[in-house]
Amino acid sequence: MTSRYVIGLDMGGTNIRCGAVTPGGRVLMLRRGPARADETASAVAANIAEQVLALEDQARRRGLGAPAAIGVAVPGPLNVYTGTVMTAPHVAAWRSFPLKRKLTTALGRGVVVENDANAWALGEFWRGAARGYRNVVLLTLGTGVGGGIIVDGKIVHGRSGMAGELGHVTVEPGGMPCDCGSHGCLEAYASSSGMRGLVAKRLGLDGGAWPASYLDRLGNFSVRRMTAAARARDAVAIEVFQTAGRYLGIAVASFLNIFNPELVVIGGGVAGALGFMRRTMAAEVRARASRPIAADARIVRASLGVEGGVVGAAYAALHPVGS
Amino acid sequence: MTSRYVIGLDMGGTNIRCGAVTPGGRVLMLRRGPARADETASAVAANIAEQVLALEDQARRRGLGAPAAIGVAVPGPLNVYTGTVMTAPHVAAWRSFPLKRKLTTALGRGVVVENDANAWALGEFWRGAARGYRNVVLLTLGTGVGGGIIVDGKIVHGRSGMAGELGHVTVEPGGMPCDCGSHGCLEAYASSSGMRGLVAKRLGLDGGAWPASYLDRLGNFSVRRMTAAARARDAVAIEVFQTAGRYLGIAVASFLNIFNPELVVIGGGVAGALGFMRRTMAAEVRARASRPIAADARIVRASLGVEGGVVGAAYAALHPVGS
Repeated sequence: MTSRYVIGLDMGGTNIRCGAVTPGGRVLMLRRGPARADETASAVAANIAEQVLALEDQARRRGLGAPAAIGVAVPGPLNVYTGTVMTAPHVAAWRSFPLKRKLTTALGRGVVVENDANAWALGEFWRGAARGYRNVVLLTLGTGVGGGIIVDGKIVHGRSGMAGELGHVTVEPGGMPCDCGSHGCLEAYASSSGMRGLVAKRLGLDGGAWPASYLDRLGNFSVRRMTAAARARDAVAIEVFQTAGRYLGIAVASFLNIFNPELVVIGGGVAGALGFMRRTMAAEVRARASRPIAADARIVRASLGVEGGVVGAAYAALHPVGS
Repeated sequence: MTSRYVIGLDMGGTNIRCGAVTPGGRVLMLRRGPARADETASAVAANIAEQVLALEDQARRRGLGAPAAIGVAVPGPLNVYTGTVMTAPHVAAWRSFPLKRKLTTALGRGVVVENDANAWALGEFWRGAARGYRNVVLLTLGTGVGGGIIVDGKIVHGRSGMAGELGHVTVEPGGMPCDCGSHGCLEAYASSSGMRGLVAKRLGLDGGAWPASYLDRLGNFSVRRMTAAARARDAVAIEVFQTAGRYLGIAVASFLNIFNPELVVIGGGVAGALGFMRRTMAAEVRARASRPIAADARIVRASLGVEGGVVGAAYAALHPVGS
């Protein structure tokens, strides 16, 4: 029996999204489950395997049979060749964790693992904004900044599959502290955690009270709320977005000069505020990118929603590295 | 008759080096001629063709027959697919100049053109320090800073073959002016023209007299002379090299995070002063590169001399893009 689908799974800090995807990239079924990221290393892996089996079960009941391949996307630098996760921002227990081996054992068959930003990039490449292009730089602006680089139709993995850490290029040597331990990384400006730091610094909030207009219902800093504040002409929100846009533009100009891509795709939750960042971003790109290289490229929004990572994980399963 | 050699030609601002290279990468013959870079666009191209024919003539007299292929490396962003040179730092007359077409007509057969930094990278990859590696970032520190990126054994060309402008990543947004028109590019610190600017700024030389210890016999700023001054414990020379090393390290850390390479190769005339830059460079790499990615990589000196570009141009001729 030929399989009519591939399983793609995308694990975030809170949720797991798992889908049945056709060989053409269409999502037939999509289910959401908890990530259980704070459990033990093995329990987190077992939960991933369970979600795969649950989807497979559902698919079987719909007469779809068994999947042709399984792709799993997880955050954090990982060795795509061995399937070992070095560290994962949301899974404290994963330290040099042999995820691929654990999943292969649990599922009784081969599994392809991929970095979540790379999977998302592959999703946009296969079915989204980067469809039909060969050289693409993709940035996902969320809690952090992730990256995926496509050169001549393939993800740049590097020696161990850890390439594409685009959030950790330096854009301001003496700049804001970054969660990675360094200073002045792109992530320290163009992510929600970076913007949180920019607002705190701008308002001198050294543990002090935050303006309610920047907080969600749980009292956490929210870029979505800050975007609403900017729309209501809040000067600080507008200024912080402009600063973020400026550094985003500095990084994008460098990526253009490095890669001469056809397309730069920007996605992730924070990309919803791109309208407030675009002017300062564009000014830096104009000032810093080589003119013929900039003339070659367009900068666009990602077009896939939350299913992007699922679709990309499925693509990774169909095109395993080294094949 | 099977050909026993390939012609590789490397054009600089002053000289052209042209060599007969075996299919294994050994240089059989090497000749040097003038670049005539200040002549008309067509005359510069005609001169390149003449040098190829002169070498071929010499080779024929030595019983080597005709070359199997011809590779020509020139400075400046060029479209490797069409063979059009967009601009060239040393050839003022080349503006969107169809070099490949002109050479093909003049020589009566196909010619491969490649960017000189990419050719040099291919030389190091084929026969030099990067031999046996698959993922390599190469930086050439000379009058400017050039770059060549090798991913999975191939040069990253990008959409039009202009990728690898590693000298023009931003390392200090509000930094020193760069010859490209931007500010704070790596080239504005880690090239001889950048160091010239750093010394002038440090000494407040606004058109004033330069210390003789920094000048060559023609009265021009010389990194080689500055290196001698640093060896004699000249405080300004040491400080400028440390500043250059710091920014080189900032850029190298970004390249590591972007590419996860096995090797970073640093060459070019200014690399002779690497000893004075290494400490500050290493400190930035330690502080800014992802730890597992840095653990994967070594930073080494280039091992080929002036023949590197010739050997690489020959390699490019043997492995044309798109084949």
